[in-house]
Amino acid sequence: MGEVVYPRIAVIGCGLIGSAIIRAARAAGAVETVAVADANPEHRARIETLGYADLVTADAAEAATGADLVIIATPPGVIGQAAKAAARGMKAGATLTDVGSVKHPVVEALMAAAPDGVHVIAGHPIAGTEQSGPDAGFAELFQNRWTILCPREGQDSEAVARLTRFWEALGAHVELMDDKHHDLVLAVTSHVPHLIAYNIVGTAADLEAVTQGEVMKFSAGGFRDFTRIAASDPTMWRDVFLLNKDAVLEILGRFTEDLQALQRAIRWGEGEKLHELFTRTRAIRRGVIEAGQESATPNFGRDQRP
Amino acid sequence: MGEVVYPRIAVIGCGLIGSAIIRAARAAGAVETVAVADANPEHRARIETLGYADLVTADAAEAATGADLVIIATPPGVIGQAAKAAARGMKAGATLTDVGSVKHPVVEALMAAAPDGVHVIAGHPIAGTEQSGPDAGFAELFQNRWTILCPREGQDSEAVARLTRFWEALGAHVELMDDKHHDLVLAVTSHVPHLIAYNIVGTAADLEAVTQGEVMKFSAGGFRDFTRIAASDPTMWRDVFLLNKDAVLEILGRFTEDLQALQRAIRWGEGEKLHELFTRTRAIRRGVIEAGQESATPNFGRDQRP
Repeated sequence: MGEVVYPRIAVIGCGLIGSAIIRAARAAGAVETVAVADANPEHRARIETLGYADLVTADAAEAATGADLVIIATPPGVIGQAAKAAARGMKAGATLTDVGSVKHPVVEALMAAAPDGVHVIAGHPIAGTEQSGPDAGFAELFQNRWTILCPREGQDSEAVARLTRFWEALGAHVELMDDKHHDLVLAVTSHVPHLIAYNIVGTAADLEAVTQGEVMKFSAGGFRDFTRIAASDPTMWRDVFLLNKDAVLEILGRFTEDLQALQRAIRWGEGEKLHELFTRTRAIRRGVIEAGQESATPNFGRDQRP
Repeated sequence: MGEVVYPRIAVIGCGLIGSAIIRAARAAGAVETVAVADANPEHRARIETLGYADLVTADAAEAATGADLVIIATPPGVIGQAAKAAARGMKAGATLTDVGSVKHPVVEALMAAAPDGVHVIAGHPIAGTEQSGPDAGFAELFQNRWTILCPREGQDSEAVARLTRFWEALGAHVELMDDKHHDLVLAVTSHVPHLIAYNIVGTAADLEAVTQGEVMKFSAGGFRDFTRIAASDPTMWRDVFLLNKDAVLEILGRFTEDLQALQRAIRWGEGEKLHELFTRTRAIRRGVIEAGQESATPNFGRDQRP
């Protein structure tokens, strides 16, 4: 067991990420007491059954009372509201953070909600699966993944160091980043890829000439990977696109421009152009593997390979 | 060991799919003798070392001599040429097939190449990984995946049944399909998804405001799945887009139209529209899992989950 980084934490909104944080923090011995607030009565009942929290309540302020760290883990669109509710219970010297996939508007909302004497350090663990809910998190989710923290200038450096130690105890690497830059980076590496995946799955569902049964049966040629991404939580992703509108539209504009150039190359039979791009993208894949963010095993070692 | 379906097979072009067929057919006892022709001297040397073929040659006609089944497993753009070369060695009563990802132009090319008395049955196993070359194939690649066969009307039904038994021995399910319809189905489930993946990886590489290091480090948010698809064999995929131009442009047109509608919904803050699509696409994912083409394990059971 490692150091107890925060004796008492409160998780507000306990889905995939909230439940993974609790399980990872308990496994690492980084916390002693865990309070959970969740607005969904079915979730609360399930969390009681799973038994990973010491207190389960509908009241964010009750959960936050006495906590050294309050983590808002709701969908991004209601982080501000949840932070406001939790703030009523927070003590001076505590840290208020979140796990939302968009950071600039969230930092603004957290700062507006936080009482005096509370450290505001927004955060985003770059990890997840397509599953949702309080059953979905597992202790290893953050292992070897990056968590980005976005402290504003002038933030207490000891508070930042402490939150960094917490995430490292959960297995993550930590990077500090400006919140606006975060939103642009994530638009590229996460938001636009999700939008594209949702879109192609939707396009496939609407075809008249190809049945949905055919789409599903013959999905192993590439499509099934998109269906996994397009099975992610609808509410969270709606919020991401609405909150990170500018960066998403910027990257989407470039994507569409590039796609039109590819479409033209196909129409005019320009094989060289296609081959050049397809060769260049292989190098990026190698970079992702070397950055430790993926295994080199083909097909993610899907179960047909022993 | 099962029935010997074809005592002697010849594989012309021995990369990922060719080597997987040989290993799977040997594991199943579906063949006795395997001849390989490959134009690449490095591949031939490697195949000699790996020892899974009885004859390794640069000469397709030599490999095809005496074969009961000749499988053209080259990139799609040179299937016709490879079939012509193999045809010079083929005996009457043998079957000529292929594994190309595009079927209509390939069927035409195989028919033009085949000598009298040879059964032409084009085929396409919907399976693969992002790896290439004679080392890449493994015996389980086709397990529980679909192979589509596209016999033209009037094709000998016994020959079709025999090739079906061969693929079933390798672990695949077999579906018969019109070759033009195949090309439309695969444009949706494979070709356009690959094009989109190549495109977004290219877009990300070209950004000035986000470094490639950042793209790689923070790729776990969705992007890394696209990099895997975008690491597929460049030559094969160039050929696919050039050969299946009409269907790819048709599906791409619909994709772009749908994407523009999504883009507009984001710009105007229409959260309901986004949520509706994102909910609908979850159902497709369930369909893919129920069709046995994917595991329900989140994240494909990547290695961070024990």
